[in-house]
Amino acid sequence: MTERAPIALTIGEPGGIGPELAIKAWLRRTQDELAPFCLISPVSMITQAIARSGTDVPVRVIQTINEATSVFKDALPVLEITDSATEVVSGVASPKTASVVIESITKAVELATTGKASAVVTNPIQKSALYEAGFGHPGHTEFLAELAGPGTIPVMMLANSKLRVVPLTIHIPLKDVPTQLKTELIVERCRITHKSLQNAFGIAKPRLAIAGLNPHAGEDGTMGTEEKTIMAPAIKQLRDEGVDVIGPLPADTMFHEEARANYDVALCPYHDQALIPVKTLDFHGGVNVTLGLPFIRTSPDHGTALNIAGKGIARPDSLIAALKMAAEMATKRLATGA
Amino acid sequence: MTERAPIALTIGEPGGIGPELAIKAWLRRTQDELAPFCLISPVSMITQAIARSGTDVPVRVIQTINEATSVFKDALPVLEITDSATEVVSGVASPKTASVVIESITKAVELATTGKASAVVTNPIQKSALYEAGFGHPGHTEFLAELAGPGTIPVMMLANSKLRVVPLTIHIPLKDVPTQLKTELIVERCRITHKSLQNAFGIAKPRLAIAGLNPHAGEDGTMGTEEKTIMAPAIKQLRDEGVDVIGPLPADTMFHEEARANYDVALCPYHDQALIPVKTLDFHGGVNVTLGLPFIRTSPDHGTALNIAGKGIARPDSLIAALKMAAEMATKRLATGA
Repeated sequence: MTERAPIALTIGEPGGIGPELAIKAWLRRTQDELAPFCLISPVSMITQAIARSGTDVPVRVIQTINEATSVFKDALPVLEITDSATEVVSGVASPKTASVVIESITKAVELATTGKASAVVTNPIQKSALYEAGFGHPGHTEFLAELAGPGTIPVMMLANSKLRVVPLTIHIPLKDVPTQLKTELIVERCRITHKSLQNAFGIAKPRLAIAGLNPHAGEDGTMGTEEKTIMAPAIKQLRDEGVDVIGPLPADTMFHEEARANYDVALCPYHDQALIPVKTLDFHGGVNVTLGLPFIRTSPDHGTALNIAGKGIARPDSLIAALKMAAEMATKRLATGA
Repeated sequence: MTERAPIALTIGEPGGIGPELAIKAWLRRTQDELAPFCLISPVSMITQAIARSGTDVPVRVIQTINEATSVFKDALPVLEITDSATEVVSGVASPKTASVVIESITKAVELATTGKASAVVTNPIQKSALYEAGFGHPGHTEFLAELAGPGTIPVMMLANSKLRVVPLTIHIPLKDVPTQLKTELIVERCRITHKSLQNAFGIAKPRLAIAGLNPHAGEDGTMGTEEKTIMAPAIKQLRDEGVDVIGPLPADTMFHEEARANYDVALCPYHDQALIPVKTLDFHGGVNVTLGLPFIRTSPDHGTALNIAGKGIARPDSLIAALKMAAEMATKRLATGA
């Protein structure tokens, strides 16, 4: 494949801000030089959203995703999936549309794994509504990993124009972080991150920086020992494998501009250590990238925002950033032949 | 007292960058509109540093600190303390100068508590060299608290032009944070912070924001319970006392520009949660402020930097910011009559 295929964009929770953001992103296609994308959705749901938005966005239902490339400049391309014929209420996440939400994701993954889509960009889902309808996965990412096949280990990366971060543990209580941070986990996540930066970001020799768990990275063992017992062995192993990695670094002094120049990605033992700097530096332009999947997947770094859905005030910055990053990654991936 | 007295600046570790920074700060007195300060030091140590720096800074030994006000524009005022007649080697922290380091601090505190100095600004010390000479305090701040008298509870605040943060626990291993974070500790630190913002920062009704301990502030108990069991009772008590406090907030979404507009100070359960955002936003202009003392104390937010001492490359930004903040706080304190 030598030409970049269109991006498959999922509908996400229809009662959330996803449909509205898709419309706003398409309206900014020229201004933001967006690569063609195709919304995977029942056409009724997007026409409902357009009606609510008061905009005059033309929609074109296409039969195969490759048509999106030529359609995109004139209309929002929609690849239709089964319509549940449900009236969507903005601000309400309903289990009645769960099958649509899931089919949109499944279809996007199928398109990406067969090379018909160059990437999957997912709008936010409301897990609670899906659980009510029988969805059995802990989250969006785990579902994607299962669709990708056995042995897939998804790694979450948050990225904006200033910083890329990977939290090594994610949605667990802080008290569990010291016991869940294992040498093998660090090595595995670093390997996946390293490979992804090569294949999908075009960085030939990625520079990884690992934050210490404790204040001042333990200050030589006086404020915690995990840097020596758990982290140092992981760093040694990675270096033995040829990975360019520094750390464990004191987390408070590694995110200012001069410090960020020393690495391509920061890996942090826990959620807030990774997400505070990236969201402080650029709150609206953050993109969630899932590494370790056999296809490119990005998503906006926010939720369904039910409280503002349908009001026309949701900012499309993060979805636009996610679409742009997916397109760049797809181009790099084509170039590296990965 | 209606006129602001000079600031007492300690020498700090003579082998570190403190003397060099004092010289650089004085040279920028006009450019940065610095309030008069007086270095508390043996005169030989500062003349040695001036000779090493290759600059031509005039020094004036004064007998009482109030002379600094008129002297400051023409010369660096030095209030002399006992000279240990020790040759200082840049880059080496020696126990031989420990008595000078300690006397400089003691003298500065005496001047501040008697109202002869409007504030104490401390240059960094090297604890290891002091311990060798018999210094028995865990750190600089604890020593100052002891000099201030019994019952003094010092609270560390980091501040720059964009953000003020108070870590509720500081130099302890991360695994100990969940057990050391107590309701009483939160209430006490918040009270001291609240009062200081009124008295020394001139904020009539300070707005406090408290970060949650866990990711997403526990997300209603699904990722940790300390927000409900430990933090919520503290917040309730503070509100009952009339303190304007919000939280516990998800830490990752509270430090971007729009979010920062909602509060005057952020209080965070642990070191990195507080220090990552403040140092990411402005690394060189950070100031360490000790709240809860009966006098104003600020210090630059860096250490002795022995590795670059005497090379002329140390940046005085943080010391200058500390001097400016001390002067502003002294002015506000005079105005509030506290």
